[in-house]
Amino acid sequence: MSTDKMSVKVNVDLQKERQKCNFNIQEVTFIFDGGKEQTLQRKKIEDIALNSGASIDSIPEECLGLKERYDNAVRKSCIYSRIVKNEILEITGLEALGNPVLRRTADAFFKEISPFMLHLGMFVPTIIGQCTEEQQAKWLPRALEMQIIGAYAQTELGHGTFIRGLETTATYDPETEEFVLHSPTLTSYKWWAGGLGNTANHCIVVAQLYTKGQCHGTHPFIVPIRDMETHEPFPGVKVGDVGVRMGFNTADNGFLSFNHYRIPRENMMMKNAKVLKDGTYVKVARHEKLTYGTMVFVRVTLVKEAAINLAKAATIAVRYSAVRRQSQPKPDAPEPQIIDYPTQQHKLFICIATAHALQITGDWLWRTFKDVLADMRGGNTDSLPELHALSSCLKAISTSDSAAYIEQCRFACGGHGYMLSSNLPLIYSFVTATRTYEGDYTVLLLQTARFLVKAWEQVEAGKSVTPTVSYLTLAATKEKVLWNDFAEGIIRSFQAVAARKISACAETIKRHMKTGICYEDAWQLTTVRLVSAAESHCRSVICQTYWNEITRLTASCSTNVKIVMEQLATLYLIYWALERSGDLLRYSTISEKDLNRLQERYEELLALIRPNAVGLVDAFDFRDEILRSTLGAYDGRVYERLMEEALKSPLNDGPVQASFHKYIKPLTKGKL
Amino acid sequence: MSTDKMSVKVNVDLQKERQKCNFNIQEVTFIFDGGKEQTLQRKKIEDIALNSGASIDSIPEECLGLKERYDNAVRKSCIYSRIVKNEILEITGLEALGNPVLRRTADAFFKEISPFMLHLGMFVPTIIGQCTEEQQAKWLPRALEMQIIGAYAQTELGHGTFIRGLETTATYDPETEEFVLHSPTLTSYKWWAGGLGNTANHCIVVAQLYTKGQCHGTHPFIVPIRDMETHEPFPGVKVGDVGVRMGFNTADNGFLSFNHYRIPRENMMMKNAKVLKDGTYVKVARHEKLTYGTMVFVRVTLVKEAAINLAKAATIAVRYSAVRRQSQPKPDAPEPQIIDYPTQQHKLFICIATAHALQITGDWLWRTFKDVLADMRGGNTDSLPELHALSSCLKAISTSDSAAYIEQCRFACGGHGYMLSSNLPLIYSFVTATRTYEGDYTVLLLQTARFLVKAWEQVEAGKSVTPTVSYLTLAATKEKVLWNDFAEGIIRSFQAVAARKISACAETIKRHMKTGICYEDAWQLTTVRLVSAAESHCRSVICQTYWNEITRLTASCSTNVKIVMEQLATLYLIYWALERSGDLLRYSTISEKDLNRLQERYEELLALIRPNAVGLVDAFDFRDEILRSTLGAYDGRVYERLMEEALKSPLNDGPVQASFHKYIKPLTKGKL
Repeated sequence: MSTDKMSVKVNVDLQKERQKCNFNIQEVTFIFDGGKEQTLQRKKIEDIALNSGASIDSIPEECLGLKERYDNAVRKSCIYSRIVKNEILEITGLEALGNPVLRRTADAFFKEISPFMLHLGMFVPTIIGQCTEEQQAKWLPRALEMQIIGAYAQTELGHGTFIRGLETTATYDPETEEFVLHSPTLTSYKWWAGGLGNTANHCIVVAQLYTKGQCHGTHPFIVPIRDMETHEPFPGVKVGDVGVRMGFNTADNGFLSFNHYRIPRENMMMKNAKVLKDGTYVKVARHEKLTYGTMVFVRVTLVKEAAINLAKAATIAVRYSAVRRQSQPKPDAPEPQIIDYPTQQHKLFICIATAHALQITGDWLWRTFKDVLADMRGGNTDSLPELHALSSCLKAISTSDSAAYIEQCRFACGGHGYMLSSNLPLIYSFVTATRTYEGDYTVLLLQTARFLVKAWEQVEAGKSVTPTVSYLTLAATKEKVLWNDFAEGIIRSFQAVAARKISACAETIKRHMKTGICYEDAWQLTTVRLVSAAESHCRSVICQTYWNEITRLTASCSTNVKIVMEQLATLYLIYWALERSGDLLRYSTISEKDLNRLQERYEELLALIRPNAVGLVDAFDFRDEILRSTLGAYDGRVYERLMEEALKSPLNDGPVQASFHKYIKPLTKGKL
Repeated sequence: MSTDKMSVKVNVDLQKERQKCNFNIQEVTFIFDGGKEQTLQRKKIEDIALNSGASIDSIPEECLGLKERYDNAVRKSCIYSRIVKNEILEITGLEALGNPVLRRTADAFFKEISPFMLHLGMFVPTIIGQCTEEQQAKWLPRALEMQIIGAYAQTELGHGTFIRGLETTATYDPETEEFVLHSPTLTSYKWWAGGLGNTANHCIVVAQLYTKGQCHGTHPFIVPIRDMETHEPFPGVKVGDVGVRMGFNTADNGFLSFNHYRIPRENMMMKNAKVLKDGTYVKVARHEKLTYGTMVFVRVTLVKEAAINLAKAATIAVRYSAVRRQSQPKPDAPEPQIIDYPTQQHKLFICIATAHALQITGDWLWRTFKDVLADMRGGNTDSLPELHALSSCLKAISTSDSAAYIEQCRFACGGHGYMLSSNLPLIYSFVTATRTYEGDYTVLLLQTARFLVKAWEQVEAGKSVTPTVSYLTLAATKEKVLWNDFAEGIIRSFQAVAARKISACAETIKRHMKTGICYEDAWQLTTVRLVSAAESHCRSVICQTYWNEITRLTASCSTNVKIVMEQLATLYLIYWALERSGDLLRYSTISEKDLNRLQERYEELLALIRPNAVGLVDAFDFRDEILRSTLGAYDGRVYERLMEEALKSPLNDGPVQASFHKYIKPLTKGKL
């Protein structure tokens, strides 16, 4: 337990809740972190980064003007990146740049993300992934030493999802051995790149490569955009901030355009393709599918971020619900803690379970990816399409579920959840963005659906398929799957639902084609159902993974930890069975009686989990500096903290605001 | 069509969409506004308020600091209230204070609500509703002339939903003929009241009334809180801003506490109860149920606000989807408008339909309320509980649906929906708040559920029930209702679902009581299902009302208007039938084949509505000043407007921000 948790008086109700908890909290923390070593490393990193107090703002970020907020974020970014460079990377090694612990720690410094985040998160990894060794030797040390600060600009004002449609051009000029970067239209302006607006002096730019009059598609270039001495944008470069966003307002998202702007030939990132001095384009022989790597890596990170942010929201809402008292269902009885209302438990406990489910699925996906990577090095790429399909739907569902449940946590906190000082609105604004970027929800589910329909066609043709879709054979017979309400039975039924939906989509496509339209048009007409089928597939994967892994991970745990972890996982399965009762009624033998029994078990589980609820969120082990919430702090001093935060607002800096004299007084005196 | 729509060049794709539209847009505008006269009056009011340009900010509100934003809102509030007082009230009469047209017009002035809003929206109406004639003569003219500015403070830091639990006390002192207001605890601080933080000089305060040593429950008092000359809070009054919120940041939400603060006896609002000079408490004989009036009125307003805000979001997302092009499903074909993707239609068209459904249900509720009011004046209060139950669930479902669909519109706009300049995040932040205030979603649905269970008990006992629950007889037999997919059949099935869920809840309560627990405990254990039952009831009411009313309202319309309006209403019914397929499978005879047919019809409807989509949102008739959206303006200059707005940010006020010299340069030079 961190020292900051010990030094204050804890709300009496929270204290009682902690006495009620019947399991070993630390064991659950280890599970959530992915093991004891991970927990210890995380705590060590948190101690290094947070114990100096450098993360603390005297005025809340949201009370500052845009410029002040940005300046403050830059100031703290410098401190934080120094801590990372000098102290943390020694512990973790360079891989830590994508380590969720770093993100978690950074949350204590930045309510709304550092403008340097994508320097370490995208610029550096892209140099490692896309540069030749020679190029790496030039750029990597400078980037790691923060001598240059980089951004990554791919998306344009008019082009996001469809990368082939990017309009920015890089035309090779063999005369000067330079590339000429150009933005031919307003829609070709780069837009959204984090850190680009005012911070970065270099930028990786993705542009259509032209040489010898031929277009070779999009390639990445390292582009110096600002003078290192003056920070002025170079002539031919237009760069700035994209304007205020729903969140990420200190992330410095920028726009960028070029007017026939020249960079040396060597600034093309040449690991996968080269342009020779004379303008000859050379594709480097290399397994194209290796580029999946970064993408899968980013998606795993997003799945785990979704889990961690949902865990934060659940921590806030559960602790608040233990402190808050409301109404008087029985005369003369005291107002109950709102966590005692089953409707409140219904809103909150699924959030705790989902945080575990996503965290565990994220870990599993990462291990699966590393296995595939090992196979690929041995030349076997059979599992790649499956991995791509998996990472697509898991990214979509985890960010979407997580965002929805974070809002549910906010609703569960009533009006006070609407205060920024609860931190729930900011957590939501962050996670809801991840639903869109790095692959939009609908687009990704349709990518998974492509894979699923192909897999179904293989099953139909009697061919074998990869493990995560082997359940598709369930759809070969049109019989309803036999329902039983053991975990394995529920999972089996979910698989049958997915299988039947996928096969039905394949049939629908065929039916449309019989009217004379082409495959692609038939596909489009089926997309509403394809999205739903991909969602069902993903749900069955999460359910199965969560259940199998929690069984495995708790095998050597103490009894009560096993029990409570199994309760949560069962809650997850039953919750979704009830949510998807329509699917189960269509494709399994589930009866009205089964559904009623399931509802009863669900309500029984809420009651069983109730006494351990605060313990379960304590086990997520968020330090107050990271949680940043008046409602969710460990000590439960909810009302005191709300008041303390309010008083920090500039609107409370004196008893009378200037507008009284300027406007209100003349108005009330009839003189306006 | 407003002049501002004519003066600019319109995006070619939008122009084509408008040529495709096959119905008379104006007729649909009349339907949405509630009639031709309403449309004409609205346009007249909009012309008066907006044509001066007084609503326009040179710097976007969200780019200002908190203080500047508040000052600017006060400035515009003075202008706007003068326009309302001098010009608009003459057209509309005093009832217009709650008129949605005023709110709609105010949206052009305030992205985030005026600090004066609750002066006109709550302070003045409460004076009218709770003061004696003598008191009204004193306070009303001063309030209407803006000589005093008032707020309304009920909710406390520790008490929202449970009004009986309020802690602020007003103790009568017969010696001085004064009330002594006091805030005994931190949790008793008033919290949230709009306009209270820095603006109001008076406040209606709801406090526990004590006289002659006895508590008489909560009563309202008019409390002067700030000196009219200096605006300083009076001694004994502590008042300020509650801190930054997810939205409403110019609404000046405040806190307020009293330290034995005295006000004259006459400041108790005495229409419903009096305290005589000697301290005798006198309840005025008056139908208590008349106080339902204000509550129902506020809820109707919220239903209609939910509709209008959803209509705004749909306008933005549909126009953007007609302008935005993405991907290349077929080689060599141009990128399609994203509105051509069925998944996009699936996200958006339900939003258009829901806006109509809620608007129409809101109008119907208001007419029903006026009928009940007339009955009550004749002494008949039989319909009141039904009306209360109706307004409760309609407020809950309309604000919740609307908020969810507004987010869906934002998702449908991809990354650009995340820009504040799209206005979608602000619209969401506004509507999601209405889900909580004036009755939380879950609390209100449980109030409706109380009524429904009672009604079911009456049906079981063979007694007659009021019209909106007469369908409960459907649950008397346990037979599944016969499915048919005509509108009436779908509605009938929804009613059967609601009836069966309600009767099942009643059974569950009985079953729990058999274990020996009391009714209230049994009720609590059933609340998760009760919420779901009340939702089903509300859905059936909306479906039936929308269908009946749209048939009635289009009776004299031109054919194509009839067709498109019927398409939307049918879409609404089928959408919800598919969403609730589990319920229908449990309680109706719907088959797998029926569900497949329904899915096909749903997809056919999307295709039928597609060519009229832009026409349908044009028919909502929002002026650009009210929509305030870079993505949704009538001219479709999406990318130009995004860029123009971005350039207004203070982060683009020069090529180099101060933080470069302070932090970034020393960092890159290794000197930090």
